[in-house]
Amino acid sequence: MALVQVYDTTLRDGMGGHGMSLSAAEKMRVVHALDRLGVPFVEAGFPASNPKEAELFEILAAEELEHTEVCAFGMTRRRDADAASDPALELLATSFAPVCTLVGKTWGLHLDKVTRVTRDENLAMIRDSITFLVGEGKRMVYDAEHFFDAWTDDRAYALECLRAAADGGAENVTLCDTNGATLPQAVAAATAAVSEALGDRVAVGIHTHNDADCAVANSLAAVGAGATLVQGTANGYGERCGNANLFSILPALQLKLGHECVSDEQLGRLTETAHLIDEICNLTPDPDQPYVGRNAFAHKAGMHAAGVQADARTFEHVDPDLVGNSREVLISELAGRGSVLSHAERAGIQLDADAAARAVESVKEREHRGYHYEAADASFELLLRREAGEYESLFRLESFRVVTEKRESGGVETEATVKIWVDGQRFLRTAEGNGPVNALDRALRDAITELHPHLAEIELTNYKVRILDEHHGTGAVTRVLLDSSDGSDEWGSIGVSENIIEASWEALVDSLEYAFQPKSQRGRSGEHPAEPDAGASERHDRSFERERA
Amino acid sequence: MALVQVYDTTLRDGMGGHGMSLSAAEKMRVVHALDRLGVPFVEAGFPASNPKEAELFEILAAEELEHTEVCAFGMTRRRDADAASDPALELLATSFAPVCTLVGKTWGLHLDKVTRVTRDENLAMIRDSITFLVGEGKRMVYDAEHFFDAWTDDRAYALECLRAAADGGAENVTLCDTNGATLPQAVAAATAAVSEALGDRVAVGIHTHNDADCAVANSLAAVGAGATLVQGTANGYGERCGNANLFSILPALQLKLGHECVSDEQLGRLTETAHLIDEICNLTPDPDQPYVGRNAFAHKAGMHAAGVQADARTFEHVDPDLVGNSREVLISELAGRGSVLSHAERAGIQLDADAAARAVESVKEREHRGYHYEAADASFELLLRREAGEYESLFRLESFRVVTEKRESGGVETEATVKIWVDGQRFLRTAEGNGPVNALDRALRDAITELHPHLAEIELTNYKVRILDEHHGTGAVTRVLLDSSDGSDEWGSIGVSENIIEASWEALVDSLEYAFQPKSQRGRSGEHPAEPDAGASERHDRSFERERA
Repeated sequence: MALVQVYDTTLRDGMGGHGMSLSAAEKMRVVHALDRLGVPFVEAGFPASNPKEAELFEILAAEELEHTEVCAFGMTRRRDADAASDPALELLATSFAPVCTLVGKTWGLHLDKVTRVTRDENLAMIRDSITFLVGEGKRMVYDAEHFFDAWTDDRAYALECLRAAADGGAENVTLCDTNGATLPQAVAAATAAVSEALGDRVAVGIHTHNDADCAVANSLAAVGAGATLVQGTANGYGERCGNANLFSILPALQLKLGHECVSDEQLGRLTETAHLIDEICNLTPDPDQPYVGRNAFAHKAGMHAAGVQADARTFEHVDPDLVGNSREVLISELAGRGSVLSHAERAGIQLDADAAARAVESVKEREHRGYHYEAADASFELLLRREAGEYESLFRLESFRVVTEKRESGGVETEATVKIWVDGQRFLRTAEGNGPVNALDRALRDAITELHPHLAEIELTNYKVRILDEHHGTGAVTRVLLDSSDGSDEWGSIGVSENIIEASWEALVDSLEYAFQPKSQRGRSGEHPAEPDAGASERHDRSFERERA
Repeated sequence: MALVQVYDTTLRDGMGGHGMSLSAAEKMRVVHALDRLGVPFVEAGFPASNPKEAELFEILAAEELEHTEVCAFGMTRRRDADAASDPALELLATSFAPVCTLVGKTWGLHLDKVTRVTRDENLAMIRDSITFLVGEGKRMVYDAEHFFDAWTDDRAYALECLRAAADGGAENVTLCDTNGATLPQAVAAATAAVSEALGDRVAVGIHTHNDADCAVANSLAAVGAGATLVQGTANGYGERCGNANLFSILPALQLKLGHECVSDEQLGRLTETAHLIDEICNLTPDPDQPYVGRNAFAHKAGMHAAGVQADARTFEHVDPDLVGNSREVLISELAGRGSVLSHAERAGIQLDADAAARAVESVKEREHRGYHYEAADASFELLLRREAGEYESLFRLESFRVVTEKRESGGVETEATVKIWVDGQRFLRTAEGNGPVNALDRALRDAITELHPHLAEIELTNYKVRILDEHHGTGAVTRVLLDSSDGSDEWGSIGVSENIIEASWEALVDSLEYAFQPKSQRGRSGEHPAEPDAGASERHDRSFERERA
């Protein structure tokens, strides 16, 4: 069976989704998550189409990835120009990325109505651009935009476009269902015809969109007809109705169709990866999502639940363990005993059986109230330390007050006062800030750093807020996720409260408490990989608290 | 081409979805919505399995439906018993419903592990139950549970089960992919083999679940292989990952595969029907849903938007009008003058060339500062009104102050004071809240509603905060997105500031200012169709500020 590989385009096509926007540091976290999942190709975007992309490529160039090759994306050369003198192609040529993917036209309607390029010139644009980049040492993928519409319209020309790419030296031509118009039978028929026409000259790939609710099925249909590269995005992010969801495709290829795309251990990280990327994008994981959703293996009807106990195959299409999900209706995968124990071990925390059981109960109870520890490793570790009796408190709060005023003149001012006890001494400090959390952080840090000066180094690098209204028992609450960094290490903390200020305070305190724990004991798991020299100064600029000295 | 019909099971299988629950009156609204859409079969549930179902069947019996036949659902008779003396079958026999659907076993694994019935007894249970109900004058559908697993396991026996149903007089045998395990190729192959084996004796149907993210494709694959009845649910509701989404299947059958399932006019109600049923179920419509989602025809990238204007086929898989949706060109840094003009026209705002040019510049400048109008239609419309000189200010702010205190006792209190001028009168109001935004909203509303009481009706339904760190020119800012509703209409507003309180205030003021503009001028397109009595109280429960009186 031919090797089938998945190709992630979350950071390029996925960012076309409504409201999607990630910083370079957040994109790096996505790249690392995909690397750990074993995704062989990750498309990072256009190099240097803007300063943010340039920063991402700069960081990526210095990064060690274990399983993933980075792909840079671009378009075929401009018409009536030389490929070598096209500035965008030149950027691709000089990029560190070993693989380049070029998108180009295939459909006469687009040539006539959108680009106004002749069919012959379009073929030359495809061939020249690929020839140039192959000459620069790049492995090339050609994305044939609107391929299936083109195929319906004029098969001979559609094939000519693919042949031009093969002539230029592309190693793969990917058939794109750009408008998401096509149904599986048509995808299978066209892909089979293309595979046969091109023979061994070039491999065939598939790239689909979900406008007809068939993106995953279309991808699998193409693989059945000879495609060996499947492009898609994490959780199906993308413009309009989204791209093909790689997290549905990967388990189907591996568990249902017998392709070995990743190792069993990597596939076991599927659920965790899906949820982590949702959190990075500040999206609520879809509880009904195939394979990875909270409800994906939840059995409601009495008979189903009994059937599952008799023999899981009676009501389960795959074993949830294989994709890192679970049959128990757990709030998250962290609420399992094995997961608690392995986290404790990694963090160097001694957790006996009783303490582990208490930690599991505590996680369950807190997740029920809206906590969510997947993107808050620091808060999770503090919870484990408390249950293990290894927790040392940094300070005791007496009270805080934060005031924001908008004056008639239009200016806004925020001031916070905190009263705390550190090592038996009382500190009262007031600070201004560009917002209530910033002001509280300054006042708190001003007090604490007198005895613990190293905590001054910590930067709050990201701050996300979501209103949770699904917790009917407790009513609507605010969840704050805070990312912090000391320049070499990054960690996440969480706070949950009806009141956004209190939730922010809780996350802020967890962040500092975590940094206060003895460093040698810290068990930084793979989730927030340390990015040693990944632009500490940029991180400073990016901080929402950049004004703190 | 054989007539293909859709069969809705929202009120039975769809209710297996997480958290789904409808009253009899709400179910009636769903039935009427499906009747208007032209759905020929609507399964109402088990008659009298509980008082709520009994009430529903009582109401339904007296109801005039124009296009829909009601189906009652049940199981094959108990083992070792006479069909005529089975109380559940007796209820079906006496029900007014002209069609009855019985589910029964097909898979040996289930007979062995779950029901412990012999294969022969199972065949008798199927045949006897159907014979009895046909004798009582019912048209019968047989749902062959786990058919595709059974087919893989033991084809001969799976076919025997279908033949037993045909022998009993069923007019349709529906092949169920109960665990959602099967992929389209396998569905097509099995359905084709069944259709051939059964010939003209009985029609074949298909019933799929979305565990492999292929429910819609599986349904279409079965139709391609001879199935003429497609069971599914509104918006894909259902246990685990949901059932096949009828609102994706119907347009594909009609617009892509040439089956005339409903009239063009009925299909034009698809989007409205999908959103109405979501509202009845107290669910937020999925903006990315195929065909009916708000983003389903939204074009973001500059080239796509230009292409759509040149020829819609370039980037649209079907004409959005045909499914009652609309082409919403999203505002973004890439959107230009045409998009501003078309938004103004839809909102009924007179924008001359100069004003349009100013609006484009204003959008660009504000998006550069972190504004993002895709999810903030209200703020965008206010911006257009200001440029058009059609803007009427609701009030003038003198000042506000908001204080949050955490006391030594542990309690947190928040209090806001606002001083504003409305129609020449000065108002000073103080209010408490469960957070600073809630407190400001209460104080502001307390002041404003004295002269504009209708603004008291507005609920803030969602609140999202993001720190933007990509805006190098201006440094890090906070972006707040606020969704509001007055019970029939929903709108989004945005605020951007270094200070989260000021950003929240701006979004809050935009929300109220938008609601204050003359309603007749509002250009709310079909995106949020008014549904006069669609559960205003449920919406209230969802509000993150539910405590506000």
